[in-house]
Amino acid sequence: MSLDSEIAEQPDVAARLLRDASGPVRRIADAVADKDISGVVIAARGTSDHAAVYGQYVLGARNRLVVALATPSVTSVYGVAPRFDGALVVGISQSGASPDIVGVIDAARDQGCPTIAITNDPGSPLATSAEHVIALGAGSERAVAATKTYTAELLAIAMLSVALEGRDPASDPELAAVPGAVERALRASEPETVAKELARMRQALVVGRGFEYATAREWALKLKELARVFAEPYSAADLAHGPIAVLDPGARVLAIAPSGATEAAMRELLVALRDEIGTDALVLSDLPELRDLGRWSIPLPGGLPEWLAPISTIVPAQRFTVALARAAGLDPERPRHIRKVTLTV
Amino acid sequence: MSLDSEIAEQPDVAARLLRDASGPVRRIADAVADKDISGVVIAARGTSDHAAVYGQYVLGARNRLVVALATPSVTSVYGVAPRFDGALVVGISQSGASPDIVGVIDAARDQGCPTIAITNDPGSPLATSAEHVIALGAGSERAVAATKTYTAELLAIAMLSVALEGRDPASDPELAAVPGAVERALRASEPETVAKELARMRQALVVGRGFEYATAREWALKLKELARVFAEPYSAADLAHGPIAVLDPGARVLAIAPSGATEAAMRELLVALRDEIGTDALVLSDLPELRDLGRWSIPLPGGLPEWLAPISTIVPAQRFTVALARAAGLDPERPRHIRKVTLTV
Repeated sequence: MSLDSEIAEQPDVAARLLRDASGPVRRIADAVADKDISGVVIAARGTSDHAAVYGQYVLGARNRLVVALATPSVTSVYGVAPRFDGALVVGISQSGASPDIVGVIDAARDQGCPTIAITNDPGSPLATSAEHVIALGAGSERAVAATKTYTAELLAIAMLSVALEGRDPASDPELAAVPGAVERALRASEPETVAKELARMRQALVVGRGFEYATAREWALKLKELARVFAEPYSAADLAHGPIAVLDPGARVLAIAPSGATEAAMRELLVALRDEIGTDALVLSDLPELRDLGRWSIPLPGGLPEWLAPISTIVPAQRFTVALARAAGLDPERPRHIRKVTLTV
Repeated sequence: MSLDSEIAEQPDVAARLLRDASGPVRRIADAVADKDISGVVIAARGTSDHAAVYGQYVLGARNRLVVALATPSVTSVYGVAPRFDGALVVGISQSGASPDIVGVIDAARDQGCPTIAITNDPGSPLATSAEHVIALGAGSERAVAATKTYTAELLAIAMLSVALEGRDPASDPELAAVPGAVERALRASEPETVAKELARMRQALVVGRGFEYATAREWALKLKELARVFAEPYSAADLAHGPIAVLDPGARVLAIAPSGATEAAMRELLVALRDEIGTDALVLSDLPELRDLGRWSIPLPGGLPEWLAPISTIVPAQRFTVALARAAGLDPERPRHIRKVTLTV
């Protein structure tokens, strides 16, 4: 069963990426530093778009870069190439095959901007189109639902962030802790019991904030793909601006609430859900007191700084979702209606 | 009942905004043109964030500007001010009161960037913080769910796009057609019959593409706020990257499918929904042959160029959603759990 084994490979993929891609990432950062970039544009779709969201927060909070998520339709539907004006333009795609993402990179190269392809296929059209390539080296990903390429994409972005600070990803102690943390995240819990209790869940709001908003996005997509749960991701900050009206005592909230700068906001939300709305939550946290605010909980391993935590946080969420699909009698290896490689134009 | 009357005021609000704000918008565009901006950053939350999404497509496809949607948490949670590096930074907020949006504008002014507040309250903290103000002049909005301030925000962005091309919004024939089109959109249909048939709808995917992706976002929020429908918006392009797995014959898709550049993609999607998945759709379109692909349909009035159509397209969607709430026995004037002004930090 490729999905389980690909989830289990994630510590090895992370260790290999740190080893093999640090040199290329450092050289890319050196080349980019010479260009004095004005900001970053990232083009991606699906799971890779959630890695782009992680990039928004990481490159914003650590490198003070404004990151725009590209709207590929502006080019592919309306035929207009935006003026990238000295930005670093990054395309992220597991397959490297989607024409609209390649179109954004082509337009950026035509304008003389530095371009990077982050892809699992260094021979793909995306890699061929971009000036620089970060090859994920995650090995063949056979399951329709992306897992190991997602965490590899996050790590590639984290390595780029470190390299853009002028440091070597290969010797960074925070990055070096990632494979071990992902390994601990794999073993931190057996999600089967919680999954069985939630097997009838048909809809959910998935909530995270800051760096973990990417996790909320990716978890919600996995829930749709694998377990057919109508799951919508929200930043905890946006929830109060309307969507919270949909919640009633029968609703379900899945909350990503690790320790750190977002802890207070997540605690406040969980208390309001419990005491004011009466909605039951499943809480992912390394903090027992936050887990206790949920009716269900899954422990997170902790041990990574907040900005790197999403690389390990998604792992128990992946395992829970696979278990949930099976508890609901579905085959997570065979999601409905979707293909591994989607060619959007 | 303030919600119905505020929906009905929208043609007047549009006409007044064109009359009163064209001068200020032209002067703002002249001032910005002198600065040679590198791109645009827009900070907004909730309904105003959907106006920001419209801005991404309009300023991208018409003015070739890269538009980044700000991640206010980078500043409010992690305490980091990104380097805006010569960008035009725009805050959009009905109330102008949300501290995190004001924080983005403050940081941009500190860096010497041109800043614009688009708000219904010219005395608000946001308006005070920004160098330039576009006052929506929509009059007091009492209903919790924003309607007339949303279409006013879209029109303000459209006027800015025209002015950035060096033209006067007051004498632009395309803009001049907006109030009449909004008026026709109000009268185009009686959504009560369709609303009654869909009164038991509990979840839905709302699909649009390009300029109308903003409409999908805003409609989905209104459905949550007013009718408690678990509605998630998707670009038609992203749907195939996983979310489509959630659809089964009992699911509901609400599709915004006006004539123009996105017409072929929307037709293809609607045919696949009907013939391959068996999901019933409600189709909003000015084209009878696209409406015929849905089990239900609501006519759009047409008559605006594609880039301006979202200002009128949302109007039948607002009316349908209010009717749906009432058909479900809810009071759309009193959505649960939310306040008119949300102060996010």
